[in-house]
Amino acid sequence: MKRNVLIIGAGGVAQVVAHKCAQNNDLLGDLHIASRTLGKCEAVIASVHDKGAMKVPGRFEAHAVDAMDSAAVAALIRETGAEIVINVGSAFVNMTVLQACIDTGAAYLDTAIHEDPAKICEAPPWYGNYEWKRREACEAAGVTAILGIGFDPGVVNAYARLAAEDYLDTVESIDIVDINAGSHGRWFATNFDPEINFREFTGTVYSWQKGGWQENSMFEVGKVWDLPVVGEQKAYLTGHDEVHSLAANYPGADVRFWMGFGDHYINVFTVLKNLGLLSEKPVMTAEGLEVVPLKLVKAVLPDPASLAPDYTGKTCIGDVVRGTKDGAPREVFIYNVADHAEAFQEVGSQGISYTAGVPPVAAAILIARGDWDIGRMANVEELPPMAFLTELHRLGLPTRIREGESDLPVT
Amino acid sequence: MKRNVLIIGAGGVAQVVAHKCAQNNDLLGDLHIASRTLGKCEAVIASVHDKGAMKVPGRFEAHAVDAMDSAAVAALIRETGAEIVINVGSAFVNMTVLQACIDTGAAYLDTAIHEDPAKICEAPPWYGNYEWKRREACEAAGVTAILGIGFDPGVVNAYARLAAEDYLDTVESIDIVDINAGSHGRWFATNFDPEINFREFTGTVYSWQKGGWQENSMFEVGKVWDLPVVGEQKAYLTGHDEVHSLAANYPGADVRFWMGFGDHYINVFTVLKNLGLLSEKPVMTAEGLEVVPLKLVKAVLPDPASLAPDYTGKTCIGDVVRGTKDGAPREVFIYNVADHAEAFQEVGSQGISYTAGVPPVAAAILIARGDWDIGRMANVEELPPMAFLTELHRLGLPTRIREGESDLPVT
Repeated sequence: MKRNVLIIGAGGVAQVVAHKCAQNNDLLGDLHIASRTLGKCEAVIASVHDKGAMKVPGRFEAHAVDAMDSAAVAALIRETGAEIVINVGSAFVNMTVLQACIDTGAAYLDTAIHEDPAKICEAPPWYGNYEWKRREACEAAGVTAILGIGFDPGVVNAYARLAAEDYLDTVESIDIVDINAGSHGRWFATNFDPEINFREFTGTVYSWQKGGWQENSMFEVGKVWDLPVVGEQKAYLTGHDEVHSLAANYPGADVRFWMGFGDHYINVFTVLKNLGLLSEKPVMTAEGLEVVPLKLVKAVLPDPASLAPDYTGKTCIGDVVRGTKDGAPREVFIYNVADHAEAFQEVGSQGISYTAGVPPVAAAILIARGDWDIGRMANVEELPPMAFLTELHRLGLPTRIREGESDLPVT
Repeated sequence: MKRNVLIIGAGGVAQVVAHKCAQNNDLLGDLHIASRTLGKCEAVIASVHDKGAMKVPGRFEAHAVDAMDSAAVAALIRETGAEIVINVGSAFVNMTVLQACIDTGAAYLDTAIHEDPAKICEAPPWYGNYEWKRREACEAAGVTAILGIGFDPGVVNAYARLAAEDYLDTVESIDIVDINAGSHGRWFATNFDPEINFREFTGTVYSWQKGGWQENSMFEVGKVWDLPVVGEQKAYLTGHDEVHSLAANYPGADVRFWMGFGDHYINVFTVLKNLGLLSEKPVMTAEGLEVVPLKLVKAVLPDPASLAPDYTGKTCIGDVVRGTKDGAPREVFIYNVADHAEAFQEVGSQGISYTAGVPPVAAAILIARGDWDIGRMANVEELPPMAFLTELHRLGLPTRIREGESDLPVT
């Protein structure tokens, strides 16, 4: 059954969501996109029409909304008749948008954990600080809320469940490895909103090991991974959303997240951090102006969306899952490889945005079809993975599995 | 004859000037210090009294003044009966303070070239953009104005003239080398106001070679110098005030300025510069706040004055002057070595401030004594050097000369 979709946000990921919704509007229905700035929404819709992305004739409308204002979002949901809200706005608006869904009965999807602008890296499990506190409210309202359904978190959670269910009897460790081997050609840039990107790396690095939370600092633990297509890549133990739900669902396994960084990125990050320029706490200039350093850094860095036209190379993101099968040790790597230039050609965004934006559209289709219309809150590994992976494959993110010398598609 | 002194500015250099004036108030007379913030002036005076620095009983008073307001400065000169103004405020106030001296007849001293906040690195010779345009006005008013009488510019200009007069028949090159081999123990800090410090290095590097202006970029040309006390040090061709007057007074010689930088400084500078964080042009944050990046960088860096208590090690600044004497090639290095900890013990400032703050006090004493009471504008190399160097020696900055294996005091 078709369900109207409201997209919140108008950045690089929202662009991908918009194109993919348009390509599947025969399954979804009316489409709406809303952000603080109407013009950004209109630009996204214009790019959809430029590519002729609407599969069948239909509505795609732009709206201005302050997503921090829950009542305004609820009013927009009612006005548009949206039954599915894909929230790819700033991570600061998750709770107000979720509340609007609870109030209106619309399904809720997001791709990153809620953040309070004033806090960095709160106590684990992160989902316990905001999202999971709304579990009962979702259940009572019969609202489907799927948390963190981008690529990572999101697809990698489904990979973990697939490995645990179909390839292993016991799971000893889940290592999520995220490598962007692409090049944007700029001296320095972040692939996501710099504010969110840097906030990920300024706090304590939490991992789940030996049944408890381990704490490290960023760039303290590094490891070279040898991956398909992108080859040997150095990645660092990093704090990331999915560790916090996978640890709850697979408490007997070690759960770690590794992100690839080049020396240049680390150097720039280290300089900015040590000087205090990544701080979210305001400082006063000699002229008496109060400035949040991180917001100025964001202002001087390239807009991540502007990187897309020149981005080349590939990403490789997946799960190294170790455990036993029939009493013997087994290790599989379940992964996807995406191409920046192909993503840009199709939807006008680079590969990082593409991998993050396609999964919530697959989920929206599963909700519309009834497969994932669960009427409660869930993290992705709590949902059956194969229908999702099949839909992802159809939408452009195929899954492969490598085991020893074997490297095969998962279909 | 005693002459009352008004110090403009209340930073680290002003602190040194205040202590040295106090130590010589028998030669100078009443002392006054003025800056935008009265409390900073009062703190300087309190530190003078803490050290018991006043040689004879006398006045030392604090005043608030906006040094960008020429009339206000003139009024303060009249009110205090100051006959000598030592301007060690921001480089942005030189022209307003100089005008106040022209209007009142007070002698004018500064330690760095005038800068327009909106411009970086104007066309050479830099003195031609602002200072030298006031030459005739000074002459007409009979006002003594000695430009750039810190250490460099200042003492190094006197070293150049000494070499040219007493050690060489022809001068082929003057290479000023400024090495700070001290350590402040912070992850990163600038020794002067970060705004002024970085502005020095973001523009074109001008040097005078083969009878013309040569242009390079910062950190493009590096050279290892083997110097007394501090040993082998890498320094880079840098734009600096004194090149612009020495080139006019010794047009047949190559005139270059070299400043020592460690790899860490260069790395931090390069990151900040390439990201646009050293820009003096305002940028707009996503929240609509207009911020000058350089002013925020200044706000997050340590206050240079706060470095003094922990500063250890030495500076070595001097002139390598090459030419001929009696038809044979000759090279001398005329230099001073200063010690950060000794400076702090004596006047509560680190060595960089000490070397900059002592010379204008020596000049003030020479003016009061009549030696340098010239009634016109001059750069330091246009004045007889030996009385100045003798006074500097007495005030704590002895001069030495190295030639081959010989290394002797200049007295």
